[in-house]
Amino acid sequence: MEASAGTQTSSDLSQLHELAQQVKALEKRLADLEERSPEDRVAIIVFSGDLDRALAAFIIATGAASMGQQVSMFFTFWGLGILRKQTQLSGKSFSQKMMAMMSPGSSESLPVSKMNYFGAGAKMLRGMMKAKNVNSLEEMIALARELGVRMIACEMSRDLMGIRESELVGGLDCGGVATYLGEALKSRASLFI
Amino acid sequence: MEASAGTQTSSDLSQLHELAQQVKALEKRLADLEERSPEDRVAIIVFSGDLDRALAAFIIATGAASMGQQVSMFFTFWGLGILRKQTQLSGKSFSQKMMAMMSPGSSESLPVSKMNYFGAGAKMLRGMMKAKNVNSLEEMIALARELGVRMIACEMSRDLMGIRESELVGGLDCGGVATYLGEALKSRASLFI
Amino acid sequence: MEASAGTQTSSDLSQLHELAQQVKALEKRLADLEERSPEDRVAIIVFSGDLDRALAAFIIATGAASMGQQVSMFFTFWGLGILRKQTQLSGKSFSQKMMAMMSPGSSESLPVSKMNYFGAGAKMLRGMMKAKNVNSLEEMIALARELGVRMIACEMSRDLMGIRESELVGGLDCGGVATYLGEALKSRASLFI
Repeated sequence: MEASAGTQTSSDLSQLHELAQQVKALEKRLADLEERSPEDRVAIIVFSGDLDRALAAFIIATGAASMGQQVSMFFTFWGLGILRKQTQLSGKSFSQKMMAMMSPGSSESLPVSKMNYFGAGAKMLRGMMKAKNVNSLEEMIALARELGVRMIACEMSRDLMGIRESELVGGLDCGGVATYLGEALKSRASLFI
Repeated sequence: MEASAGTQTSSDLSQLHELAQQVKALEKRLADLEERSPEDRVAIIVFSGDLDRALAAFIIATGAASMGQQVSMFFTFWGLGILRKQTQLSGKSFSQKMMAMMSPGSSESLPVSKMNYFGAGAKMLRGMMKAKNVNSLEEMIALARELGVRMIACEMSRDLMGIRESELVGGLDCGGVATYLGEALKSRASLFI
Repeated sequence: MEASAGTQTSSDLSQLHELAQQVKALEKRLADLEERSPEDRVAIIVFSGDLDRALAAFIIATGAASMGQQVSMFFTFWGLGILRKQTQLSGKSFSQKMMAMMSPGSSESLPVSKMNYFGAGAKMLRGMMKAKNVNSLEEMIALARELGVRMIACEMSRDLMGIRESELVGGLDCGGVATYLGEALKSRASLFI
């Protein structure tokens, strides 16, 4: 009886050790998976500089932020136009000047992607939004800030088009594709708008 | 020997309790991770009202549904035009009438995003699809329904453009950005088309 | 004492067995979750055939590949134009010929999505990129290859437009929506460009 109890205990003991090893291995795999699982994040590339797409981007961004997501918006190419507050031509190359002059001077003069008719479409859309008490784009940008949405201006696009920090609205981060991917790769949803 | 067996057992016992605690903690972390992991879902925002992009959206949606994913399509802005079956002008504001008259009357008159030439491009694309026995957009919409794809009409866009339920095809859900995000945040893939 | 030790051991033993069962169950759930968790992958649909959007796609693709992600680019509709190296009209239907003649003959003649002005915009953008020592689109395509980015030409689009393999650059995979979804559903980020 004593012997049998002893044997049992020793066999239990080895089983216990084995189990402890298994639990330790599971713990490691779980920690690894936790590390690699999507976080409560949403990453949005705003490539388009159209009013209607900008509105869609900010409606999604502020909606996601309201639902507790950490939202990053990465403004690149034409999307930088949404963040422009003024245009400075001095110090720009000929091409950069051309591009600056032909691009909207600020968010207030963005076109719509369809039926713009030299700004009539954009004006109509803004009027329809006002009639329905929908926030204007500028109000949405302010709301996004309040909700802690991270807005990143694409460094390469800025450099390419020669856009200075003083031409853009304040409170922007600056970054490249690695900055964007750093956010996107751990996000629940990535959108290219 | 007895004493030693007793000590061993008591030490085993505390180890066993400790291990049980660890397993319970792992179980909780795992349940939490399971809760937060992507489900077999795909969420697609259909912002564009172009025939070619609508086709891409429905090819992806029906493909994903065939592969066992629960697919949601959220139609917003110009995308609502894909679901239009008729246009009612009465009761619309001036801007809403303008927009309705200048938008395609139904899925059959959607333009293509490039080389549309007043509808010739769209007609050509439809002809090429027919020649190759590719499903038409209308057949794809029907297939999406059969496969249980959830189609959601954006409430805010509908309200903005004054589009009534009777102007849209049947069997649609209605919802806002929260409805979309509710799907997107637990999806394997999110697309903005 | 002996009896009590024996009882304790037997109760421990059943606890131990129970625990082992729990660990086994956890292991199964964890393996299942690992299987279903996003891999280090990024999947990009390149639908657009515009130079600016193609650049954005390749900047993201090569950036993600540099960061250790397995990147797939799925070229469909107009996006196939980015991979074109020449145009063969013989054997094409009337519509296919029309489409081929009105589409860019190669990546070098892609338009920009805004302010193209019959190619002047694209030329200006290329000039600005050169001035800033940014890789050209063709260099980015070569870099993507070097980094092991998988480029897939959409079979259905190719068939629809009658585009032969000899009209496209080499080293492409061919596939349909299932090929794309096979990548996208296990990716960290999916984009539709």
